[in-house]
Amino acid sequence: MSASAPTSSSDPGLTGRPMPALRRPLPDPPEARVGIALVGLGAYALNQIAPNLANTQHARLAAVVSGNAEKAQAVARAYGLEDSHVYSYDDFDRIAEDETVDAVYVILPNAFHRAWTERAFAAGKHVLCEKPMAGTVEDCRAMIAAGEAAGKKLMIAYRAQFDPYNRRAIDLVQGGEIGEPRLIMADHHRLLKLDELRDQWRAQKDLASGGSLYDIGIYSVNGARYLLGEEPTEVTATYLERSDREEVSVEEGVEWQMTFPSGARALCSSGYRADQAKRIHVQGASGELTLDPATDYYERNLTVKTEEGTREITIPDSNQFAAMLDEMALAVKEDREPATPGAEGLRDVEIMQAIYRAAETGDAVAV
Amino acid sequence: MSASAPTSSSDPGLTGRPMPALRRPLPDPPEARVGIALVGLGAYALNQIAPNLANTQHARLAAVVSGNAEKAQAVARAYGLEDSHVYSYDDFDRIAEDETVDAVYVILPNAFHRAWTERAFAAGKHVLCEKPMAGTVEDCRAMIAAGEAAGKKLMIAYRAQFDPYNRRAIDLVQGGEIGEPRLIMADHHRLLKLDELRDQWRAQKDLASGGSLYDIGIYSVNGARYLLGEEPTEVTATYLERSDREEVSVEEGVEWQMTFPSGARALCSSGYRADQAKRIHVQGASGELTLDPATDYYERNLTVKTEEGTREITIPDSNQFAAMLDEMALAVKEDREPATPGAEGLRDVEIMQAIYRAAETGDAVAV
Amino acid sequence: MSASAPTSSSDPGLTGRPMPALRRPLPDPPEARVGIALVGLGAYALNQIAPNLANTQHARLAAVVSGNAEKAQAVARAYGLEDSHVYSYDDFDRIAEDETVDAVYVILPNAFHRAWTERAFAAGKHVLCEKPMAGTVEDCRAMIAAGEAAGKKLMIAYRAQFDPYNRRAIDLVQGGEIGEPRLIMADHHRLLKLDELRDQWRAQKDLASGGSLYDIGIYSVNGARYLLGEEPTEVTATYLERSDREEVSVEEGVEWQMTFPSGARALCSSGYRADQAKRIHVQGASGELTLDPATDYYERNLTVKTEEGTREITIPDSNQFAAMLDEMALAVKEDREPATPGAEGLRDVEIMQAIYRAAETGDAVAV
Amino acid sequence: MSASAPTSSSDPGLTGRPMPALRRPLPDPPEARVGIALVGLGAYALNQIAPNLANTQHARLAAVVSGNAEKAQAVARAYGLEDSHVYSYDDFDRIAEDETVDAVYVILPNAFHRAWTERAFAAGKHVLCEKPMAGTVEDCRAMIAAGEAAGKKLMIAYRAQFDPYNRRAIDLVQGGEIGEPRLIMADHHRLLKLDELRDQWRAQKDLASGGSLYDIGIYSVNGARYLLGEEPTEVTATYLERSDREEVSVEEGVEWQMTFPSGARALCSSGYRADQAKRIHVQGASGELTLDPATDYYERNLTVKTEEGTREITIPDSNQFAAMLDEMALAVKEDREPATPGAEGLRDVEIMQAIYRAAETGDAVAV
Repeated sequence: MSASAPTSSSDPGLTGRPMPALRRPLPDPPEARVGIALVGLGAYALNQIAPNLANTQHARLAAVVSGNAEKAQAVARAYGLEDSHVYSYDDFDRIAEDETVDAVYVILPNAFHRAWTERAFAAGKHVLCEKPMAGTVEDCRAMIAAGEAAGKKLMIAYRAQFDPYNRRAIDLVQGGEIGEPRLIMADHHRLLKLDELRDQWRAQKDLASGGSLYDIGIYSVNGARYLLGEEPTEVTATYLERSDREEVSVEEGVEWQMTFPSGARALCSSGYRADQAKRIHVQGASGELTLDPATDYYERNLTVKTEEGTREITIPDSNQFAAMLDEMALAVKEDREPATPGAEGLRDVEIMQAIYRAAETGDAVAV
Repeated sequence: MSASAPTSSSDPGLTGRPMPALRRPLPDPPEARVGIALVGLGAYALNQIAPNLANTQHARLAAVVSGNAEKAQAVARAYGLEDSHVYSYDDFDRIAEDETVDAVYVILPNAFHRAWTERAFAAGKHVLCEKPMAGTVEDCRAMIAAGEAAGKKLMIAYRAQFDPYNRRAIDLVQGGEIGEPRLIMADHHRLLKLDELRDQWRAQKDLASGGSLYDIGIYSVNGARYLLGEEPTEVTATYLERSDREEVSVEEGVEWQMTFPSGARALCSSGYRADQAKRIHVQGASGELTLDPATDYYERNLTVKTEEGTREITIPDSNQFAAMLDEMALAVKEDREPATPGAEGLRDVEIMQAIYRAAETGDAVAV
Repeated sequence: MSASAPTSSSDPGLTGRPMPALRRPLPDPPEARVGIALVGLGAYALNQIAPNLANTQHARLAAVVSGNAEKAQAVARAYGLEDSHVYSYDDFDRIAEDETVDAVYVILPNAFHRAWTERAFAAGKHVLCEKPMAGTVEDCRAMIAAGEAAGKKLMIAYRAQFDPYNRRAIDLVQGGEIGEPRLIMADHHRLLKLDELRDQWRAQKDLASGGSLYDIGIYSVNGARYLLGEEPTEVTATYLERSDREEVSVEEGVEWQMTFPSGARALCSSGYRADQAKRIHVQGASGELTLDPATDYYERNLTVKTEEGTREITIPDSNQFAAMLDEMALAVKEDREPATPGAEGLRDVEIMQAIYRAAETGDAVAV
Repeated sequence: MSASAPTSSSDPGLTGRPMPALRRPLPDPPEARVGIALVGLGAYALNQIAPNLANTQHARLAAVVSGNAEKAQAVARAYGLEDSHVYSYDDFDRIAEDETVDAVYVILPNAFHRAWTERAFAAGKHVLCEKPMAGTVEDCRAMIAAGEAAGKKLMIAYRAQFDPYNRRAIDLVQGGEIGEPRLIMADHHRLLKLDELRDQWRAQKDLASGGSLYDIGIYSVNGARYLLGEEPTEVTATYLERSDREEVSVEEGVEWQMTFPSGARALCSSGYRADQAKRIHVQGASGELTLDPATDYYERNLTVKTEEGTREITIPDSNQFAAMLDEMALAVKEDREPATPGAEGLRDVEIMQAIYRAAETGDAVAV
């Protein structure tokens, strides 16, 4: 019966066919993957990071750390972790002896980034830390120093830098597709919703360290830098109008401008009072590139206009979370600096501090 | 030091925060998931299915079956399977004793679907079988009968029926958004590339059972049926011009029309000689809905035109593979018929056979 | 006072500047333009043609012919025509002596095209006739013969052939941009509204000669021909379901297929029961071109997909009406055959008659 | 012969059919239209204005004024004007006796707007003046005073305010479609090409009065004002980097911000060194509206994003030139103030002067 041919190992048509062309190489075996402990089990950790660890080539979920024991156990169970890999904030330090954990991913309110990064280094782990790196330049420097002292990697979780759409945009801009870049317009906005868990701490200065700028404006700062491939030298800024919500102790909006050595300027805004914008335009001497949205978790649109017309670029199956997590894992495995190290995080905090100073004084501030 | 607050379990701001809103519920623990054995380790199995099992809520990779032992072992290692869960086509039958395997997913050339489905049922496993279900109506009926005899589930892997974009399209069309649907235009084309492994068996009638219609035209047949929610009663068809490639023994293209009881008609085509099309339009009495591409693995665009204007609908993070695999797993767990059972696969084979008959005779053929 | 410089003819900056780059050459002076008489003052004549004569380079409105004297006078007054250039259907023949009229544009129900074309030729005028040219092949041949006998030009008003978007599409397809064209999908639909003046005669077989095919399906027939640059050899067809409106004595929908010598096929439909579609896709061996809408009066979208991505092409200020009218005027001025002569109109009528025959018999019909 | 039915006045089907539904009312008869003299026959006058006068309902070309007699005569001939309606800059004043001329449209370099407006008023004509109204606030005030003294209308040619896309955008924003508007991002850029006639005077401060801001940035200033429906109170600004072209004596780029009483802010830029941008976004509290391009002559795209999805709005046959010219004509015929009077032009010049001051001083400047 010919239909049963594959039952026979002598069938020439099916048996022994070679490995097909793979979109990605086969992942590392579980035991060869870099084990990552998630510190903080909020919306981002549980919706974007924990599920996407399974989509990496080189990383795996190794432990969870939370102040809510019940939640932590539920998560651990769902992802097949044994109880011994569930930590509370109090007993975290015993993670030093957990050999399944190579690195700690700090996904806590900004004000805790420094302390937990230091604590993780003290436990002998590498650190991947959410952006913004910390509230102050001083904190950032301390974190870098702690990593160096521990001889461990420190990476800041700039997912957009690992997103294939943003990477393609960098290649196009820096490859001259639209001529010399003259202007970047980068706007990030969303409504801060105080009735949502994930926004409550963001409204509080002592937890968030900064407002819309630290939260989402950082994408405009970072995006302008990586698209242009140079560092701003001066900023001007103005705060946007606040709401009358007393619970909000951070800035609710700011617009700012950055001058770059090439003469390019970036015109940016961020805010908590307008509906969602996640948009970056680059206006070049001979064309225009638009990412809109530029920094969404799942949807990105990349358009290039030149004299040849308007071209939409589609990149299938682009998982920026997995790409970012793999970079951390590879930096550990290959014992090299990650692509977005502490110095990258520090640079944005320096710039954002300058933006706040400019908004407060009304003066241009050198970076 | 305030930054260390989460170290203290008495901190009210961070400790004990409840489970955040989740995009999807936490997945089942590994041990509660339905174990799936992949039979056939070609491009689709390794690029789309194996990686996406990790994105399901209810399924997991439990075993691999291949005629290439080296490839099978590499895949098993990458996905953390022990050697005992690696099967050759020859020793497959011992899978009956493998308690980690609940179901078998047959991803082999069409001509082997029946035999391997029967063999899996004989081993006491549930079956998920790639589409087209089989080459002939007789084979389909035998597969259904085998499942019934074994008391096991049989599901046909119609991924598009689990795709959120197609599901939304169904809701819109059947919810009256564009008025009574009058016409469906559904076209699926791609170039058959004989120098690519994945296309070689598709060129051979004895392995593929049919040509472009069986391979991709089936999306037009199935799509018209699920969008209209009714069954065609008659088809007309014409073959498209062939290439002069001698290696190709299947039809290389066909266009056909289907009449539905409501009076709606579907105008369809499939082929191996035009560049990629994966497009479905629904022309309704008061508007139009377009899926273009409709059935791509990763990219779908859904547009609705009515007198209120043109609306683009975006559904973030839409994983049709995980959704399909979860349906299989839930059907097993809940002991119920899957949403796309053998009868669904049989129906398309009946229609496609009628299309071939119509193309050969030049006559309208009742279904 | 420097601001008054242009008052002085000696100003070097402003005075005597040369003719700027013009989008179009200056139009012919009114007296050098070809005078056109509009026969029939319905919606199309008054909304699209009369206003756009002013946008031509070579034509002008010279007379109006209508059965409604009051309407004709109002139109004449608005466009600056003296009463002597207003004609009724009864006194039309005296137009022979109207030297301001060079050509007659017949915009009447299809059933009158032949008689009015013959009458215009008899009056010594050139003729531009709306499409479809006539109800029957015999009528078309008689019209051509009448023009030849009179030594006057006969042009059929295929506006889409003068539309810059369709012309660009022709260039792209025939220039190989998408590889060998394999399939054309061309669909034209709209709702026939019996409560609207412009649709009432279209519902009546004795006035319209044909139904949706003659009215709008002709764009699919003609479009497939000009995009491929070849003539169909065979058609198959099926009527779409009718409504139960007794007033409608024409076909309300038909789908048909056309085979071309190159092996390309066109899959087409037209109908009066689905919401507006005016869409043409060309599926080529290495890409796809889409016009959607293809044949709207004012809006056209042209998209080309190749392996280099998706490109939207925009052509500013594209006035197909003026371009068509200018072709008629130039054919007269240059004493040459117009680009879309009677033979072009005859060809479509032959094909459409074959489509009707195929739909009635269920057989393939040679053209 | 039934085909000849319309020859008989007794035919019920065709004779005496009423006026069809018209997209626009019939135009005024030529003798009832407002006669307009074009002062300056550059690219804009000859490509956009002269041809579009024929598309108005209420205006007509009555005379041309130019320093190039040959060009003026060619234009006059093409548009059917007799020689007596051709004027040089020297003999312009005799236009006072030309009764066919009701109004003068000043399309000269900015530095001549005031003198020619005054000269036209002195000749007893109404004035339509290109934007920017004039180089200085003083000039604007003098122009308004001159019109009042003469008892004649003064309108500034803000075509975008008559564009159906911009009008729809105003309705949507002010109708609450996207919630309270928080931010406007408005960017206008193009390359200044010194080898093109139309750009040569724009490079010279003594002719253009200002640089990119006066030329195209004015669309951002005006657009923010009409979309928000309020007036800015304060501006900040920075010059963009200049090129090293010595011939250019105007600013080549500026970015600025405007504060509005509602708390909304506009973030704007204009420049001569980046490729074309003509873009306006409005970020509202619950959605976003984008015009891109917003102010092109022929192409506009209007998109509205709200929680209901993304909607593209298409407005067929939108002729902003004809609409603007008709507003001038109607203001004359109805003896009322035009919708964009001198005060509107003055307001923009005041704001642009404040922007230049802010850029020069680095300080915020109250308007």
